[in-house]
Amino acid sequence: MAAPSRLLIRGGRVVNDDSSQVADVLVEDGVVRALGRDLLPPGDAPAGLRVLDAAGKLVLPGGIDTHTHMQFPFMGSRSVDDFYQGTKAALAGGTTMILDFAIPHKGHSLIEAFETWRSWADPKVCCDYSLHVAVTWWSEQVKEEMKILTQDKGVNSFKMFMAYKDLYMLRDGELYKVFSRCKEIGAIAQVHAENGDLIAEGAKKMLALGITGPEGHELSRPEAVEAEATLRAVTIAGAVNCPLCVVHVMSKSAARVIADARRDGKVVYGEPIAAGLGTDGTHYWNREWPHAAHHVMGPPLRPDPSTPDFLMNLLANGDLTITGSDHCTFNTCQKALGKDDFTKIPNGVNGVEDRMSVTWEKGVHSGKMDENWFVAVTSTNAAKIFNLYPRKGRIAVGSDADIVIWDPKATRAREPQLLKPARLEPVLRNKRSHRNEKPMHRNQE
Amino acid sequence: MAAPSRLLIRGGRVVNDDSSQVADVLVEDGVVRALGRDLLPPGDAPAGLRVLDAAGKLVLPGGIDTHTHMQFPFMGSRSVDDFYQGTKAALAGGTTMILDFAIPHKGHSLIEAFETWRSWADPKVCCDYSLHVAVTWWSEQVKEEMKILTQDKGVNSFKMFMAYKDLYMLRDGELYKVFSRCKEIGAIAQVHAENGDLIAEGAKKMLALGITGPEGHELSRPEAVEAEATLRAVTIAGAVNCPLCVVHVMSKSAARVIADARRDGKVVYGEPIAAGLGTDGTHYWNREWPHAAHHVMGPPLRPDPSTPDFLMNLLANGDLTITGSDHCTFNTCQKALGKDDFTKIPNGVNGVEDRMSVTWEKGVHSGKMDENWFVAVTSTNAAKIFNLYPRKGRIAVGSDADIVIWDPKATRAREPQLLKPARLEPVLRNKRSHRNEKPMHRNQE
Amino acid sequence: MAAPSRLLIRGGRVVNDDSSQVADVLVEDGVVRALGRDLLPPGDAPAGLRVLDAAGKLVLPGGIDTHTHMQFPFMGSRSVDDFYQGTKAALAGGTTMILDFAIPHKGHSLIEAFETWRSWADPKVCCDYSLHVAVTWWSEQVKEEMKILTQDKGVNSFKMFMAYKDLYMLRDGELYKVFSRCKEIGAIAQVHAENGDLIAEGAKKMLALGITGPEGHELSRPEAVEAEATLRAVTIAGAVNCPLCVVHVMSKSAARVIADARRDGKVVYGEPIAAGLGTDGTHYWNREWPHAAHHVMGPPLRPDPSTPDFLMNLLANGDLTITGSDHCTFNTCQKALGKDDFTKIPNGVNGVEDRMSVTWEKGVHSGKMDENWFVAVTSTNAAKIFNLYPRKGRIAVGSDADIVIWDPKATRAREPQLLKPARLEPVLRNKRSHRNEKPMHRNQE
Amino acid sequence: MAAPSRLLIRGGRVVNDDSSQVADVLVEDGVVRALGRDLLPPGDAPAGLRVLDAAGKLVLPGGIDTHTHMQFPFMGSRSVDDFYQGTKAALAGGTTMILDFAIPHKGHSLIEAFETWRSWADPKVCCDYSLHVAVTWWSEQVKEEMKILTQDKGVNSFKMFMAYKDLYMLRDGELYKVFSRCKEIGAIAQVHAENGDLIAEGAKKMLALGITGPEGHELSRPEAVEAEATLRAVTIAGAVNCPLCVVHVMSKSAARVIADARRDGKVVYGEPIAAGLGTDGTHYWNREWPHAAHHVMGPPLRPDPSTPDFLMNLLANGDLTITGSDHCTFNTCQKALGKDDFTKIPNGVNGVEDRMSVTWEKGVHSGKMDENWFVAVTSTNAAKIFNLYPRKGRIAVGSDADIVIWDPKATRAREPQLLKPARLEPVLRNKRSHRNEKPMHRNQE
Repeated sequence: MAAPSRLLIRGGRVVNDDSSQVADVLVEDGVVRALGRDLLPPGDAPAGLRVLDAAGKLVLPGGIDTHTHMQFPFMGSRSVDDFYQGTKAALAGGTTMILDFAIPHKGHSLIEAFETWRSWADPKVCCDYSLHVAVTWWSEQVKEEMKILTQDKGVNSFKMFMAYKDLYMLRDGELYKVFSRCKEIGAIAQVHAENGDLIAEGAKKMLALGITGPEGHELSRPEAVEAEATLRAVTIAGAVNCPLCVVHVMSKSAARVIADARRDGKVVYGEPIAAGLGTDGTHYWNREWPHAAHHVMGPPLRPDPSTPDFLMNLLANGDLTITGSDHCTFNTCQKALGKDDFTKIPNGVNGVEDRMSVTWEKGVHSGKMDENWFVAVTSTNAAKIFNLYPRKGRIAVGSDADIVIWDPKATRAREPQLLKPARLEPVLRNKRSHRNEKPMHRNQE
Repeated sequence: MAAPSRLLIRGGRVVNDDSSQVADVLVEDGVVRALGRDLLPPGDAPAGLRVLDAAGKLVLPGGIDTHTHMQFPFMGSRSVDDFYQGTKAALAGGTTMILDFAIPHKGHSLIEAFETWRSWADPKVCCDYSLHVAVTWWSEQVKEEMKILTQDKGVNSFKMFMAYKDLYMLRDGELYKVFSRCKEIGAIAQVHAENGDLIAEGAKKMLALGITGPEGHELSRPEAVEAEATLRAVTIAGAVNCPLCVVHVMSKSAARVIADARRDGKVVYGEPIAAGLGTDGTHYWNREWPHAAHHVMGPPLRPDPSTPDFLMNLLANGDLTITGSDHCTFNTCQKALGKDDFTKIPNGVNGVEDRMSVTWEKGVHSGKMDENWFVAVTSTNAAKIFNLYPRKGRIAVGSDADIVIWDPKATRAREPQLLKPARLEPVLRNKRSHRNEKPMHRNQE
Repeated sequence: MAAPSRLLIRGGRVVNDDSSQVADVLVEDGVVRALGRDLLPPGDAPAGLRVLDAAGKLVLPGGIDTHTHMQFPFMGSRSVDDFYQGTKAALAGGTTMILDFAIPHKGHSLIEAFETWRSWADPKVCCDYSLHVAVTWWSEQVKEEMKILTQDKGVNSFKMFMAYKDLYMLRDGELYKVFSRCKEIGAIAQVHAENGDLIAEGAKKMLALGITGPEGHELSRPEAVEAEATLRAVTIAGAVNCPLCVVHVMSKSAARVIADARRDGKVVYGEPIAAGLGTDGTHYWNREWPHAAHHVMGPPLRPDPSTPDFLMNLLANGDLTITGSDHCTFNTCQKALGKDDFTKIPNGVNGVEDRMSVTWEKGVHSGKMDENWFVAVTSTNAAKIFNLYPRKGRIAVGSDADIVIWDPKATRAREPQLLKPARLEPVLRNKRSHRNEKPMHRNQE
Repeated sequence: MAAPSRLLIRGGRVVNDDSSQVADVLVEDGVVRALGRDLLPPGDAPAGLRVLDAAGKLVLPGGIDTHTHMQFPFMGSRSVDDFYQGTKAALAGGTTMILDFAIPHKGHSLIEAFETWRSWADPKVCCDYSLHVAVTWWSEQVKEEMKILTQDKGVNSFKMFMAYKDLYMLRDGELYKVFSRCKEIGAIAQVHAENGDLIAEGAKKMLALGITGPEGHELSRPEAVEAEATLRAVTIAGAVNCPLCVVHVMSKSAARVIADARRDGKVVYGEPIAAGLGTDGTHYWNREWPHAAHHVMGPPLRPDPSTPDFLMNLLANGDLTITGSDHCTFNTCQKALGKDDFTKIPNGVNGVEDRMSVTWEKGVHSGKMDENWFVAVTSTNAAKIFNLYPRKGRIAVGSDADIVIWDPKATRAREPQLLKPARLEPVLRNKRSHRNEKPMHRNQE
């Protein structure tokens, strides 16, 4: 579906993160050109202008999912939603941009990984996208490539794994070096915070006890393992004054570590995900193996049923900042690789289509946040942290027309109307030396 | 000084709370009319257009001081800065709007107090102002007047005292009723959070011990007395789902109570003040009595020297939200009323001129926050909470031209250039039923 | 049952709070005379010596229940277990001493109340007892009587109510005075910590909403109301350096306040009770009214199901110190006074018989504490705080023979063997100026 | 000095951890034989009985210093106090038993290290001693030797280093295995909790910045590095349910981690040391290099001046449990190895002589604890944890006559009278399968 050359969204309630107003929005060539009352004079619409009536609806900046893994080769399989299906689902849920991850193996080039992921995504994406790049090993080459990616490829976020021992995991000394490099080049460090050594030992212990089902997944890596790694990441980032983003915050204790670090003056952002905000880990004890297995992800959902509510409170008060989905879907056949051994179940859940509506229901409908804060945590904050703002994350003159028409009364906003043309290229983020250098990163010089 | 009918501020870095850009700002009739690059074509400026060169400077939304007491009759005296001197000082420091307090005595009309304060302010103010109204007793009349003030007078904030026993203090049952009423009429409750009973006993104890100097002021109401009342206010507000703003947060323990409440899902805002962010309570032990006495305010500055840094950390991470000054100045003669008895020293410090530069120095210069967050905590957040946004708190087309040109390199921004015409009326805040109903108050239905 | 004049308990594992040993215990005239291996030479027991075989059993100091209300006139009724039935139940559960409360009405003499309670207890008790005395009002007479009770009546603990507005509740200024007096005379202050004003308002609100059932009891006084009052009590006690004991700690948030205060250097003890350690407040939503009503007590059990486990953790790590039951039983008829209005349900639950076994099961059997710590929290710590140690709370030569033979493997230690002669007088606690002046109260001079 | 064959300590106040009493103590052959009033009939003392008058004095169980390094070969030097001088100093300060560390190099036998240390200590010690054994690497041999040490050598505590990278440091996977082994054999795990990777990087950074003086020591390993490792150790121990003892707790944040873990139900003990209780890290900025260098130890003393008071509060409330000294002295010559590079300053401070008096002054004299609690934290708790109780840690019939006569009014108890014969062998601790199996380790099965 190509975007109409001119479009008028009429009479909706335009909701940005700072305020709301009833206004018309005029879009041309994918960019917002005007915003105000009564942009269309009485009478017929001019030729070439498509008019959408949004009365009674909310007109929101398109959602930004900060965490997806489309067609990701992982654990002997490949996530079943490719960049086409995945981004189609994103759009269906009100998300107009995803941030996926290019993940090289140890010893391999970061730039090559970046190009590989682009080659997968470019022919398929239905919505905007950008790539975080994972740093899974350390060398002078890695150091140099990080700089090139930041300067020439619009990447300002690098993800490091503290889990997946031997595969992706970095040790503390390596993390120190990567975080230092992030600081030098003006990028933000992201971490998967779980203690890989403890997971490896925990898994062995569970299997030795004869626990092979999905519940073993959570039992082998309980939330203490996540909280520990989170504090370690915070400490290392603090040692080099590097802004940090903890991805997929799944537990109360890990979230508390982040909130405490912020209270202590650290620049740390936390990203809860749709699954973690919407449900809990009691599913791992479900009698139906497929049901349980489809909830397996790392870090796991937590059995404590008060977890989602707690995470939403922190998202509402600002201690957690952005929302992702960690969308990485495997079908039951693929999950069955781990039928007799939970360590072989490919890790991943869905969420790219559900993130916006889960956050609305658990956040806004429940009264924990208002519509403006909803926009902040589903779109604006991500745009700021990942250097896309104000092109993304705001409906304003000059911004991209990533717009969602949201019906706040629908019981499930299954198919919000969307205005997102397919693109063939990833969004180049502003370089950090430009205009909007440190959108939400407070200085730590 | 009348505002020029047309004014162009050229080439500055316009800093809002969400982003910064180099742009010109065109002002007409006290309102921003245009914002963008190169608004003035090459050649001479047209007649009637004043041009200000702001290259290398920051162009900020005018500061909003959320807490002043000009010419306040208090403790047998009257604060020496009247609305003329006080607002002149405000402007000299980059603050273009103050929020003062109309405070009736027990048994007296809130509306009459409001009108009295207006009659003092209107002839004198050099900058915009608005009034919070104190509720110092409870009756059906008070209940009705609160509604009238909100509906007809643009007041959406009411302040209650948990200290000043017998004079202004309300008991918990009364607080419950006032908070309930605030909730009903869509206003925010503000509290002076100190335990008045404990202060009374503490003062007696100190005097009995022969401690009559200014240090007795702090010793008689240590920070536990503040933290206790803060939790009590949070609890009562929580019982009726009323948004709460704790004014003059002076101690680490009280600030922690606020941060914990937010983590628990409560809508609570905290207001540190210039004095508390800039210095500490060791001054009460200064050998020079006047030096010590001039720091006497309630709640007191705290002897713990790590307090200012802690408060600034919380202002930087969002746990504290706005900044005031509690500007309420008494000269040494007035302070001397308590020469032999610290309980008779009129409580109050200065700060309306210093709030912006103190926050800049301790917050931005120290690296705890960036320029955008500075705007948020000195202006934008206050505008949102007190229903002035986006007319105040943002430089945008259609906003009031409350603009400060800030030299980030000056060692003391003694006299920032200001663009603030004197007005004769208080700013009517948007009624809560209008456009921007709950700017930052998350729902708590 | 009269105690045998001489008794030998042979071969049990004698468990004190500091260590355990297999030993015989020789008792004469209600006092332990010898403790050691093989006290009885081979051959028949001498005449007049009763021998009990305790092999494979634990021999424990008798439990001390720090909180009961036998035959208490309350809320238009009188608790149904009198001092006979109540102390019989105590003995049946392994408790050999109870601490009940003498509670005068406002304006009435403390000493008269003390004598009244004695007159009720003395003819009936089957086990040792002592009395805390409540201070429900303040005057010079009260001040004087507190001293007399401490000096002449062996009372070193006074209880104040922050709830039961108008009936028993003291305001902060009064609490300050009573705590000061406790400090002067060397007594410990106890508080029922709930905010009486908020309870009154909360109850009105619930009834206005049409919520009249037992669930309204909890909804009208949620745990924030308890935590608030707990911090207030801690703050007031801190202001006068008075040791504090918070009775019936029922919620995680209140327990956290106590633990935080201890971390801050305060001398504060917390008393969880059998009901709170054993179950939670979901019972208030039980469909059977009598079932729900029989759980009504103040402060209420909490709906958060993780509460009992949390309280037990704190009892195990030392942040909570002693255990009571708040045994105050009403039959269904009496409870029915509040059939249509939860505020009229007489508050009270059972527990004097169950306290020991609940603590064993949830504490020792669960692995949270060992047998020695069990003795500490069920007996020894109470003996120390209330000035009964080492006469009570320890099996040692010279101590009272309050001994329980405990079968650690029984599924319910329904009827532990007991060695507790009935007495006719309350135990006079050591005066504070004697031997064991400040058993567990750290100095706060 | 040989112990007299019979000794009577007359009229002192015998202070145990649970209570105090005025009593005589009769000692024969190094063991307490009787305890009570008036043990000596009027008239002359029998021949062979030495009588000491202790009227007005405290009679305490001898102190147990849980952490010393006498004549320790370390950092290119050897600590200057050998087992003779060190234990003489211990006795001079009221400590009658030390626990030193046998520390094998990676790849070396634990048992050989144990024997080596014995060979150094046995000919020299003036007081009782015992040895913890360090586990600095992992193998089947180590696993086997740990069992032998526990079963045959009376060792129930093994220490692991998370710092001293490449030298002693274990990685998380190794810690998991060692902690598991401790759990299996009934030993307690001890950790030096600092992140060795971060220290290595921090030191490089400081030296690169040109900071070579003692202040670089603290700057390169600030308290976050200690708190991080502490949480990691707690997490790993929790994963295998092993009791944990964190040695030399030096910072508020690390102490908070321990207190939080205890609140969470974990069995964790913390050991502050004399230096950390008595002073702070501002000494590293002292202008006199030797002054600063003599305070260098790992983890460092902390610049936050509120640290000692905070640690003492936690020692007083039970969140910290025992006290050591980490006595490991180097003279100025030895310290000068690091004159131009703080990383080469041999780490270590004194304290074995001062631990008791520092704890008395900062703990008892300040009012934070009473005399009984003082005995607990300086002696009894250590005896329980390290399986020496009640032979050590208590004055009771049958206990070792490790007795200190303490003058509570002396300004410095320079030379308390001591009753401690020299021994030639380490004290064999009770095997864990014996009498007093889990003195203070709560079950975690």
